[in-house]
Amino acid sequence: MTPQRDPALPTFARKHLLGIDGLSPHEINDLLDRAEAHVEIGRQVSKKLDTLRGRTQINLFFEASTRTQSSFELAGKRLGADVMNMSVASSSVKKGETLIDTAMTLNAMHPDIIVVRHHAAGAVALLAQKVSCSVVNAGDGAHEHPTQALLDALTIRRHKGKIARLTVAICGDVLHSRVARSNILLLTALDARVRLVGPTTLVPPAFRDLGIEVTTDMKAGLKDADIVMMLRLQRERMQGSFVPSVREYFRYYGLDQEKLAYAKPDALVMHPGPMNRGVEIDPAIADGPQSLIREQVEMGVAVRMAVLDAVARNLPNA
Amino acid sequence: MTPQRDPALPTFARKHLLGIDGLSPHEINDLLDRAEAHVEIGRQVSKKLDTLRGRTQINLFFEASTRTQSSFELAGKRLGADVMNMSVASSSVKKGETLIDTAMTLNAMHPDIIVVRHHAAGAVALLAQKVSCSVVNAGDGAHEHPTQALLDALTIRRHKGKIARLTVAICGDVLHSRVARSNILLLTALDARVRLVGPTTLVPPAFRDLGIEVTTDMKAGLKDADIVMMLRLQRERMQGSFVPSVREYFRYYGLDQEKLAYAKPDALVMHPGPMNRGVEIDPAIADGPQSLIREQVEMGVAVRMAVLDAVARNLPNA
Amino acid sequence: MTPQRDPALPTFARKHLLGIDGLSPHEINDLLDRAEAHVEIGRQVSKKLDTLRGRTQINLFFEASTRTQSSFELAGKRLGADVMNMSVASSSVKKGETLIDTAMTLNAMHPDIIVVRHHAAGAVALLAQKVSCSVVNAGDGAHEHPTQALLDALTIRRHKGKIARLTVAICGDVLHSRVARSNILLLTALDARVRLVGPTTLVPPAFRDLGIEVTTDMKAGLKDADIVMMLRLQRERMQGSFVPSVREYFRYYGLDQEKLAYAKPDALVMHPGPMNRGVEIDPAIADGPQSLIREQVEMGVAVRMAVLDAVARNLPNA
Repeated sequence: MTPQRDPALPTFARKHLLGIDGLSPHEINDLLDRAEAHVEIGRQVSKKLDTLRGRTQINLFFEASTRTQSSFELAGKRLGADVMNMSVASSSVKKGETLIDTAMTLNAMHPDIIVVRHHAAGAVALLAQKVSCSVVNAGDGAHEHPTQALLDALTIRRHKGKIARLTVAICGDVLHSRVARSNILLLTALDARVRLVGPTTLVPPAFRDLGIEVTTDMKAGLKDADIVMMLRLQRERMQGSFVPSVREYFRYYGLDQEKLAYAKPDALVMHPGPMNRGVEIDPAIADGPQSLIREQVEMGVAVRMAVLDAVARNLPNA
Repeated sequence: MTPQRDPALPTFARKHLLGIDGLSPHEINDLLDRAEAHVEIGRQVSKKLDTLRGRTQINLFFEASTRTQSSFELAGKRLGADVMNMSVASSSVKKGETLIDTAMTLNAMHPDIIVVRHHAAGAVALLAQKVSCSVVNAGDGAHEHPTQALLDALTIRRHKGKIARLTVAICGDVLHSRVARSNILLLTALDARVRLVGPTTLVPPAFRDLGIEVTTDMKAGLKDADIVMMLRLQRERMQGSFVPSVREYFRYYGLDQEKLAYAKPDALVMHPGPMNRGVEIDPAIADGPQSLIREQVEMGVAVRMAVLDAVARNLPNA
Repeated sequence: MTPQRDPALPTFARKHLLGIDGLSPHEINDLLDRAEAHVEIGRQVSKKLDTLRGRTQINLFFEASTRTQSSFELAGKRLGADVMNMSVASSSVKKGETLIDTAMTLNAMHPDIIVVRHHAAGAVALLAQKVSCSVVNAGDGAHEHPTQALLDALTIRRHKGKIARLTVAICGDVLHSRVARSNILLLTALDARVRLVGPTTLVPPAFRDLGIEVTTDMKAGLKDADIVMMLRLQRERMQGSFVPSVREYFRYYGLDQEKLAYAKPDALVMHPGPMNRGVEIDPAIADGPQSLIREQVEMGVAVRMAVLDAVARNLPNA
């Protein structure tokens, strides 16, 4: 069984998905349409396709990840691929050449797709140059996390019917967030209005130069927002005096009922997870009626099925 | 191919298996009959069914476990399910909400069954309230380990032809044992006579109030026993002065030929593993003709296949 | 789909593959022919056979290994087996009996094949005596690593058309290398001329007594060599004053362009991986036109598919 998709749709023609940067709005919409077709699969009794049967997918994670790795693993298995997980302790990766040696060793085993998470920005693109299979970026340093941006867009589109002209407030630790970066690229490509909200130390001023609205004030930032997208406060990536106190942070930037009231009455709340409850978001909001947080996770599997299928179709031998 | 089972048998109608507590004798026997039908599968050249093909099983283990996790993994794979293992380091689980967030995140990926082991008694039942899929308890703190009790009962029934009216001596560290607790519940439900044998510090007196015979003397405890069920001495869960010396422990409570002679001549010896050889059991007994220890492991896979199949049949969409 | 093989070929009739020691040239060639038939599978769009469908393969690794475990995992999955990985931390294995208890516990779950890596020489053969399934040695201490020697031989044979009468220089840390040992056994069985080259402290003199040519001089060792096989310098297994300085080591024993020029002009370079670049091998050689290092990895999957298939065919119930 194969999910129904309009055959008139143009085909995503890339072998890799390394980032949102460089994708046309057309390509992004194509991936979202393909993902839409996979949502229903996850809700059926039999969640198994044979799209990638006989194919080999390797999940190569240099950073631990419960959520993203699981999502890619289930996506690949439900497409019928043979999926192999490789978690590489950061400590064993001391030199750039080790990443490449690992990648080329795996490549020699003829995988069709390698899904990679790495702590260094650009590492995934470097790896893609060295291997003959498809490469999917599952997060590289503070650079990009394209499948997260796609799943966020799919979630928004299913609820609001569109992306264009929506006002999306991305709030919190933008500085350390590859999720923010990929979302900014995708949302602006699809003509949403993006606002960044956070303390000066956590929102790089460079975004203002790119024409993105930036504010340090949640009231101004959330005003008339259709979507309030909270980010995880990545305290583990901060140093010394720059680490904000959790109490202070929640007071000024934590999303609670009072701050959410600044947004439109039908505004929807998102968070890429894992959440620091009581730090960047009030549990009552996370679990409340405006929250899409669980649905984001569901859309994640559908988006990854679509991406794995799409890149594999563009392998030379496919 | 599906194992043969009498269609006249009534159906286990629960979506979860959280414990033996609350199961009727009828339900227990039904699960044992289902397991019986799966024993033969593991002995064939092809050990693969398609009962759960298209289904997703997640093994969510907050405590490390080689044996139980392997058994559930093989059971799920042999039923044709897509099986995903998630081992969550205890250190990352600081708050109860993290358990729930983890569970609800996984639930959003539409698994059909989550198999859970957790260090806190009651955690699995709490989790089951939050998710829409089936939940199987693979051990929660010192509370329950229902599939272990079922596999023990299946092993006994295959050798003795029945459970009722057998005398079963459960010996050793009852205090820290979820295995003991689940076995006491199951064996008494099926009308076996259960005796608890161990030092005063390791057998909670509360069991005596429940009408269970309790003794500190192996000679009295094993007298006329049909089954001698040894428990692992869980020294890692004991503190300070309460930790018995291994030498003393073996002298008084370790099962050797001399103590086993107190039981019936055809008594059978069991141990849930992993064994501390020379602590709670003499290696000569563990590997001797009266030992069922390896067969317990084999029955474990059959019982878990039966349980996974049974709960999945009771999902709303099945 | 099954790979084509000449039905007139005699059949490898062993249930286990514990080492190269004791295999006849006939058996070795048979395994190489079987592996040859599997090379093409890894290069196709669909890399899936159903040879081992319904069979259970357990990868039991007492030592961490990215490369070998991955290779066996993909080999098993591509043959259609249900594959389960078990990584056992060395720390939990204190007594020999634990290895046996672990093996017998797994055996009771009715696997068809257990692939074992263990830090103690002989552990795998010991384990094979205790279980009823097939056992494949994936490396035991400094003893043997038979599938590595087979994949090396397959790689050589595909490039040189033969093994007999080739001169093969095995260079470096022979003392700590199970790879060297299995290769010496295999290559001499197939009538290659083997030379060992390395510092006195790292090449056991006992090999000289076995009629193997031994030299401490790379120029003499590589003269007229057809194959230059470099070994990983296993500094982690050396103690105190015996650990050579990396700089000194590379100067005398690292393979660079100057030393490679001593060998035949069409000499080929091999390394079992993972490489210490700049220690035992110059990166320019490792990635150069005479290097077969990536192809060794590819042959590894084909060899393991052949071995898994071959041993499983010789199980009593097959």
